[in-house]
Amino acid sequence: MTQLSDEGEIRRRMMQAIEQARLGIGTTSPNPPVGAVIYRGMKLIGEGYHERAGEAHAEIRAIQDAKKRGNGHLLRGSELYVTLEPCSSYGKTPPCTEAIISEGIGRVYYGVKDPDGRHQGRADAILRAAGIEVTGGVEEEACKILLKPWMYAVERKRPWVVAKIASTLDGRIVRRGGEKKISGEEARRYVHQLRAESDAILVGGRTAREDDPQLTVRTPLNEVSPVKKQPLRIVLTRHRDSLPKTLNLLSDREADRTVVIENVEDLGEMLEELYKRYGIVQLMLECGGHLLRKFLEGGYVNEWVQIFSPFLSGGDEYVLPGNYLDSEQRLVGVESERYGNDIVLRGLIESSDLGE
Amino acid sequence: MTQLSDEGEIRRRMMQAIEQARLGIGTTSPNPPVGAVIYRGMKLIGEGYHERAGEAHAEIRAIQDAKKRGNGHLLRGSELYVTLEPCSSYGKTPPCTEAIISEGIGRVYYGVKDPDGRHQGRADAILRAAGIEVTGGVEEEACKILLKPWMYAVERKRPWVVAKIASTLDGRIVRRGGEKKISGEEARRYVHQLRAESDAILVGGRTAREDDPQLTVRTPLNEVSPVKKQPLRIVLTRHRDSLPKTLNLLSDREADRTVVIENVEDLGEMLEELYKRYGIVQLMLECGGHLLRKFLEGGYVNEWVQIFSPFLSGGDEYVLPGNYLDSEQRLVGVESERYGNDIVLRGLIESSDLGE
Repeated sequence: MTQLSDEGEIRRRMMQAIEQARLGIGTTSPNPPVGAVIYRGMKLIGEGYHERAGEAHAEIRAIQDAKKRGNGHLLRGSELYVTLEPCSSYGKTPPCTEAIISEGIGRVYYGVKDPDGRHQGRADAILRAAGIEVTGGVEEEACKILLKPWMYAVERKRPWVVAKIASTLDGRIVRRGGEKKISGEEARRYVHQLRAESDAILVGGRTAREDDPQLTVRTPLNEVSPVKKQPLRIVLTRHRDSLPKTLNLLSDREADRTVVIENVEDLGEMLEELYKRYGIVQLMLECGGHLLRKFLEGGYVNEWVQIFSPFLSGGDEYVLPGNYLDSEQRLVGVESERYGNDIVLRGLIESSDLGE
Repeated sequence: MTQLSDEGEIRRRMMQAIEQARLGIGTTSPNPPVGAVIYRGMKLIGEGYHERAGEAHAEIRAIQDAKKRGNGHLLRGSELYVTLEPCSSYGKTPPCTEAIISEGIGRVYYGVKDPDGRHQGRADAILRAAGIEVTGGVEEEACKILLKPWMYAVERKRPWVVAKIASTLDGRIVRRGGEKKISGEEARRYVHQLRAESDAILVGGRTAREDDPQLTVRTPLNEVSPVKKQPLRIVLTRHRDSLPKTLNLLSDREADRTVVIENVEDLGEMLEELYKRYGIVQLMLECGGHLLRKFLEGGYVNEWVQIFSPFLSGGDEYVLPGNYLDSEQRLVGVESERYGNDIVLRGLIESSDLGE
């Protein structure tokens, strides 16, 4: 029997599914982060999220979880809440619609339709044909925000690009006296979280040489996710030989996860290659101002995260050195949040090709 | 009979007195903004604030207000809440302690002691000798914040200096294409409020010539306060003759409130002169980066207000042009707030001579 829940309760449950989905951010690429919860009446009987490409989808994980909890007998007639339209075709795993039908789930609520035109809306028809009630578009906006980088990457065949900048209030990236570590502890933790959510981090050869960064997630990875790997580290340089072998990026224990790309002429093509070859959905830029300008001017930066530390330093190391940008960039939906003594501003770049 | 109120109620009433005091910000200099409320039992019987130097103090205004409301007979045995220790000496007006005694007020709560050592704590003794109970230090921190610019000015004999900067996220003060109006409507209203709270606004000759600003409060002044005047406008320039007579600052209806100061060699002395001669307690800087640097390097800037507009523009017009500051400036207590699409960061400059 199908249990009808009221509007507010349905939304609340979808938010639980979104919380599940978040657990997969940073490990699912090239797949999207998806979460699911299953209710029988007012009781949560199972929950799960997609963890890694090639492994079980969120719906299957939630069904498995219900069984593990001894709730298998409650699946028949239950309600499934999932952030993305269930898949209806064979990929690396069988279609979720099949499992939903065979478990006798009575009703399905989902957030966003499959952006792939070939599958879009197909689940509705398949499930309804099996007598299952289907409602799409539940908390659609919240689900879309969650899926934005992935939807963008699928559509454009290149990664969603997040630029991260740490600066003083007067737009310098070096403090008086030469100190390049500008941000405080709390803001640095925030950066590590951003890295953990990204599939790859990109710098230029100059940053690699001068700062010798590690670009790793310092939070213990198993605290992030049991399947979390360090992000790929990408270095754009004119000649590979210009990078000393002793650099952290080339010599540390994650050295096999560093990709050196020589002599890039077209950033757009390079980005497409990163998506195609490594399945990179979210790319984080931690490069210097000169390279950052090129990404901005190409319209490739989707999101801007600037950490302002409460200093005025002067000096000639700027966030964006030099002359006017080819085209002014405008941010929308800017949010500010305080981390320790620092203020983080984060927004979407309007002039970038934001998709829908 | 003295009505004893509980701790929370006492604090709440002092916050009401602070709200009153705020109404005087921008019109009381060289006097401080002070507010007062009078309660009899649980009833608010009068309230008032100091409006302008030479006129009645907050306590007297509150007593007058009680009488005007027909509450005069309730003054005997009432409780007075005032943000600053009542004055006890003859100035331009008779001492407030006298009025408090003659009206038979039963109890006095005040926030901050008179910072002038000659008067400090004298009210306590005078009032107690008249049988009035006195409690100082109520909501002292909140009262101090309110009085900070004035306390600083009294102590240092020079104004509290607030620097206002409007910039892009990359620290430019001009948008691509040359547009100097960077901030949006809401943030500009905030700037006008800041101006209304300031006694004077300072620019350099270059800004006066190139931008031809008005530096006036655009909010109708009678909405700010019935006695509000436009802030003084101060121009620092090498030669008065370098300023065309047609500039707004020299030709508009407020032209007699523009002060041109030539050839300043010592900013500290200039500031002392502004305090001594014009009673300027709060000075707002709206000057360009070169002059701003000098104020910063002299340690004269107390508060920093930066309006970040959500653009990245590039270009060579920086918030602070040129090289490293002589000494790095650190901000403390930074708060951020959103105004429309802009984010305002405001904090105190630690290295400035902040007083207590």
